[in-house]
Amino acid sequence: MLDKRRGRSRKSDGLPGEFELIARLVARLPQSPRTILGPGDDCAILARSPSRTLVTIDSMVEGVHFNLRWGTPEQLGARALTVNLSDIAAMGGMPTACVVNLAVRPGVAMRILDRLYAGLRRAARRSGVDVIGGNITSARQLSITMALLGDAPARPLLRSGARPGDEIFVTGTLGDAALGWRILAGKVRATGAPRRDLIARYLAPTARLFAGQCLARLRPVPAAIDISDGLLQDLGHILDRSGVGAEIDPESIPVSKAYRRVMGSDLALVLGGGEDYELLFCARPGHSGRELSRLLRVPTRRIGRIVRGRDVHLKGGMPVRIRGWDQLRTRS
Amino acid sequence: MLDKRRGRSRKSDGLPGEFELIARLVARLPQSPRTILGPGDDCAILARSPSRTLVTIDSMVEGVHFNLRWGTPEQLGARALTVNLSDIAAMGGMPTACVVNLAVRPGVAMRILDRLYAGLRRAARRSGVDVIGGNITSARQLSITMALLGDAPARPLLRSGARPGDEIFVTGTLGDAALGWRILAGKVRATGAPRRDLIARYLAPTARLFAGQCLARLRPVPAAIDISDGLLQDLGHILDRSGVGAEIDPESIPVSKAYRRVMGSDLALVLGGGEDYELLFCARPGHSGRELSRLLRVPTRRIGRIVRGRDVHLKGGMPVRIRGWDQLRTRS
Repeated sequence: MLDKRRGRSRKSDGLPGEFELIARLVARLPQSPRTILGPGDDCAILARSPSRTLVTIDSMVEGVHFNLRWGTPEQLGARALTVNLSDIAAMGGMPTACVVNLAVRPGVAMRILDRLYAGLRRAARRSGVDVIGGNITSARQLSITMALLGDAPARPLLRSGARPGDEIFVTGTLGDAALGWRILAGKVRATGAPRRDLIARYLAPTARLFAGQCLARLRPVPAAIDISDGLLQDLGHILDRSGVGAEIDPESIPVSKAYRRVMGSDLALVLGGGEDYELLFCARPGHSGRELSRLLRVPTRRIGRIVRGRDVHLKGGMPVRIRGWDQLRTRS
Repeated sequence: MLDKRRGRSRKSDGLPGEFELIARLVARLPQSPRTILGPGDDCAILARSPSRTLVTIDSMVEGVHFNLRWGTPEQLGARALTVNLSDIAAMGGMPTACVVNLAVRPGVAMRILDRLYAGLRRAARRSGVDVIGGNITSARQLSITMALLGDAPARPLLRSGARPGDEIFVTGTLGDAALGWRILAGKVRATGAPRRDLIARYLAPTARLFAGQCLARLRPVPAAIDISDGLLQDLGHILDRSGVGAEIDPESIPVSKAYRRVMGSDLALVLGGGEDYELLFCARPGHSGRELSRLLRVPTRRIGRIVRGRDVHLKGGMPVRIRGWDQLRTRS
């Protein structure tokens, strides 16, 4: 817990000793009254909560999920929190506290870690999350792994709640982050405002916490998931867990002007790009996109409906491979 | 949560797709009634607890904390849990649930991961822990990061509770695990039973959960810490947090016969070796080692006492460097 830097690795370049390192990293961490004991002991202690507890864990690995040259360390620290916040949002929960494991490789200067933690602290303060502890280790790749706790709503949004007849909605626009990543990686060319906007969607995503909390107050409570692995794959999780199929109208999927400018009518990254951190949910008929946009305070669009069966039908006959779709293999 | 294998890495050698991988890893995970929702959704859901919640996170990185050739994958999975259990033990808590992040490098076969998870499942069942979720990512090094939750006792064991006059005790024997590691690394030669015993202490440590829970019922409640980074360093944490010093009698520190056989009278690894996962605690005078051994159900020995000041005095004048002691740099 935040004062162990176990390991028998080589001396780390230019880093201070472990205790100084930790002291600097945890400085000025935001803490609410729910944190009885923060970093510095063997465990942190959280006050009893009136709610059930949500728990999630996620990891970002250098060279896999991020590249230090692409954004600022502050963005990286904030993003490590956001990808976890998005899981809490997808259950309709309220994030409360996190613990962080930082794996540091040789060559990562102290000022990078300082800035990374500054970004994390700021994002935590904004979202009401206490950073209650952590661990530092040496490794050959920089990585940030975070476990995030949250208060569950009375009726959480589950992947398993979709029923035939439900209408499928998504928040925001899809494909921007995946395209931003490709622009940064030099795989797609873009200039000007579209380039800037798309890259920002990748480097600084938003977790739809407020929208998720509003959805958890609807009755019946919608099925929901956050779109982190791509629309079709994440929709596939809902279908698997709910035992249903879906009809999707690709033309109705919200796409940004920036995406259109760069990709034209190619919807590949909209359907399978990932890293959007938007919400997909399935609600009983009777809600309009306009009404939901106002309620959730984010543009929300109906993109299809839940049907019997197990397959996804894309209107217009576009071929879909949900089963066997594997991001690890298809994106490169 | 256990069904995302994000990343844009190369195709992983011989591994099945992400969904099959996850399905196999989470198969037969033990779950108690406290787990409302286990792996498979965006977050796990835990029931309300009557206690405050302990939270800790720890990580084991290949080439830093373990070597796949040294032990079995089952031992590795169990050990990833034990090092976290030890933090709960050091607070006197009851472990309840964990989430696991597995970073998998190319070349790690599916049967290794299957066996690693089998070891983790067995250890989790033994200690009453639910494995409620996780995440898998690709990386260049195999690593296992775990966040563990627990129920806090009414009065947790803290590092900050030591007062002048307290007597310092440790459970078990110290230095064995660090010596076992050195034997495995080819830095120290040993044969026969001592070799086997010392290596076992490194590969399969025990977390002192029962002892910690008993200590938390003493009044006043002792200060405590688990010895993961070495006796002097971990004692240093207690002294720092409590604002006190200590007098230690090196001759009274419990050392195994196996350690003596290999190291003779050299106490370097006893004082600073790390990975013991024994408990060090500071109790008001009046307890004997014999009484505590019976109460805690583990051999417990008095090794010194808490004094005013900030320094550690080793009886016999052995030089001590607590400040600046940095395991990352001194062990190699």
